[in-house]
Amino acid sequence: MQTIVQEKLDQAVQLLNEQNVDAWITFVRETSQTHDPALDVIVGFGVTWVSAFIITKGGEKIALVGRYDADNITKLGAYTKVLGYDQSIRELLTSEIKRLDPHTIALNYSLSDVSSDGLTHGMFLKLSELLGPPFVDRFVSAEGIARRLRERKSPAEVAKIKETILITEAVYKELFGLPLRGMTERQVWQRAGEIVASYDAEFGWERVNCPIVNAGPDSSIGHGIPDDIAIEPGMIVHFDMGLRNGDYTSDLQRDAYVLREGESEPPAEVQRAWHACRAALEAGRSVLRAGVSCWTVDKAAREALEDFGYPEFMHAFGHHVGRKVHDGGSVLGPHWEKYGDLPDQLVEPNSVFAIELGVMVEGVGYIGVEENVLVTASGAEYLSEPQRELIVI
Amino acid sequence: MQTIVQEKLDQAVQLLNEQNVDAWITFVRETSQTHDPALDVIVGFGVTWVSAFIITKGGEKIALVGRYDADNITKLGAYTKVLGYDQSIRELLTSEIKRLDPHTIALNYSLSDVSSDGLTHGMFLKLSELLGPPFVDRFVSAEGIARRLRERKSPAEVAKIKETILITEAVYKELFGLPLRGMTERQVWQRAGEIVASYDAEFGWERVNCPIVNAGPDSSIGHGIPDDIAIEPGMIVHFDMGLRNGDYTSDLQRDAYVLREGESEPPAEVQRAWHACRAALEAGRSVLRAGVSCWTVDKAAREALEDFGYPEFMHAFGHHVGRKVHDGGSVLGPHWEKYGDLPDQLVEPNSVFAIELGVMVEGVGYIGVEENVLVTASGAEYLSEPQRELIVI
Repeated sequence: MQTIVQEKLDQAVQLLNEQNVDAWITFVRETSQTHDPALDVIVGFGVTWVSAFIITKGGEKIALVGRYDADNITKLGAYTKVLGYDQSIRELLTSEIKRLDPHTIALNYSLSDVSSDGLTHGMFLKLSELLGPPFVDRFVSAEGIARRLRERKSPAEVAKIKETILITEAVYKELFGLPLRGMTERQVWQRAGEIVASYDAEFGWERVNCPIVNAGPDSSIGHGIPDDIAIEPGMIVHFDMGLRNGDYTSDLQRDAYVLREGESEPPAEVQRAWHACRAALEAGRSVLRAGVSCWTVDKAAREALEDFGYPEFMHAFGHHVGRKVHDGGSVLGPHWEKYGDLPDQLVEPNSVFAIELGVMVEGVGYIGVEENVLVTASGAEYLSEPQRELIVI
Repeated sequence: MQTIVQEKLDQAVQLLNEQNVDAWITFVRETSQTHDPALDVIVGFGVTWVSAFIITKGGEKIALVGRYDADNITKLGAYTKVLGYDQSIRELLTSEIKRLDPHTIALNYSLSDVSSDGLTHGMFLKLSELLGPPFVDRFVSAEGIARRLRERKSPAEVAKIKETILITEAVYKELFGLPLRGMTERQVWQRAGEIVASYDAEFGWERVNCPIVNAGPDSSIGHGIPDDIAIEPGMIVHFDMGLRNGDYTSDLQRDAYVLREGESEPPAEVQRAWHACRAALEAGRSVLRAGVSCWTVDKAAREALEDFGYPEFMHAFGHHVGRKVHDGGSVLGPHWEKYGDLPDQLVEPNSVFAIELGVMVEGVGYIGVEENVLVTASGAEYLSEPQRELIVI
């Protein structure tokens, strides 16, 4: 972890220079209650009292923290200056900012990107009061820094994600080895908990709907909580599962079809939907590379699926995967208002995306495909071993 | 959980009436990334897309959420209206606010209270843009509502906290049953992990420094990460551990002394420090009851310890315990700037506090006492079984 924090802090200094910002302040308190995603990357653990992490274009890395947190930050060995206080951060903060006298001060707020929006409104007001003029007039959004810092995965980060994907694939293998016929969604969900624990991994989002298990057409698709619906012949069984192994995550969907008596393979309309999903996923992946506009990748996948005559999927084609399953940052998505300006961003090199889409097969169930890929200058390589055929059970 | 959310939403309506606020909006997105503590209480799980939870003085409980989240919110059975959207919350939100036309709109921001400060600055800007005039001029802080909603524990909440305390006490019993002599802080910390797992409980704060294990005088006190220091005769061994069982937590400190050869009891200066800590804790508890100013409770404990000739402790005497170990809200603390106006608040009935303080015994180690209490109109009852004597090992 220590190495990754050091890598990321050096990357941050480089981004401050790229973006021509003098100082970036991450201003937080009691991070077990309200969490600034930037802290994951530049510290790796939480703090208690009002704390300021100041990174400068010149390469200074300053931590101003409560006395009890100072030791842990010092032990990281990644900050050039660590100062602790007992009663108030005011004096430490104002004297550092006066000394640095930055012409631009980037803060973690963003209308579109959640991972760049960790500064609470109360803390924004507090910082404004602490620093006062002329510094309050120098505040800018740190989105250009915080977002890219999270998007551009270092080699160590990619290795950690790959490790989590391998565990996820092993868990899926065990899940599909269960006697699934007759089991309910909830029973499968329950067993998934035991299997994941045996790998010393954790679920990537809240346990209550991780994994999502959808048996047949009447199941609650999307972020649904497992129900008492039993897996029966003629159903598609769909899984959506993200795991966390240490600090990094994965996000993969997998599908199976349960043969009816007399069937030796899935019905034609199921196979057609499966191949359309696979083809549309590939259509998106084939245009994904560093430097392209995010929305164009979504468009390629969306149009490919529609060319097969299926309705468009009601979500974005791709999201970053990293410290979180939904890691924030740019979105491989359409120009829907809820995505803000994230579809207009350019894809950063070394991004790791989950790419996904799906089709509802009337009366049979939902097919969802989702794989994880690493973006390079020339394309997008699979980090997961893609599911190429529908599993038959 | 469902019952608790219903209880808390009814309590929220009551608080809107008490505080004379027309509508309270909790405005969030991707809560696995940035977390609004209010959501714990009024929903109990996370949401993905931009979501607005509107509670009105008249008793309406409205959830406007992404389509995939709508099912889960509906299943809660606690909201009077649940509406889902695909592309943007704009239309749903503006039409609901126009219909309600509230004269005051409380939002989750606060300079002092972290648990009332879950609205990010980016989301504040977004909401201002979405609602526009005249509504932006009606924004007020929801601190008076969000803070009290969290502080006033319902009977079901108190029962859950009590359950977690019982588990914590059982874990401590096992820890003190270990052959502690010669074990390092890190080894004890490691074993604590196995014991807690066997109770199906989780740690209350980040595993890396939970429990805190301090062996002797050279250990890192406060929020320290366990070290390779071995437990040896003549040392005080100090633990600080919070657990989570389901949604509710505990926070307790425990102390032991390791006898030297020839000793049959701890040395006089250790016993004196122990009894001073206990007496100061009791001095604070004896003035704690609903309606008193928070700072007066801290003052009673602080002065009692100083009367014994020990230096004042460099933290607050008491903090709320609930969904989080540091549950936010008012603070039984001195008028230090970092506490803002929280020491000036009045103690709410049915609050659950962790009360704590400590003394460093030169050359021997740190003694810290911490218990959990429930506030009533007439006093503060122990929820934990208080440690009355120093454990001798």
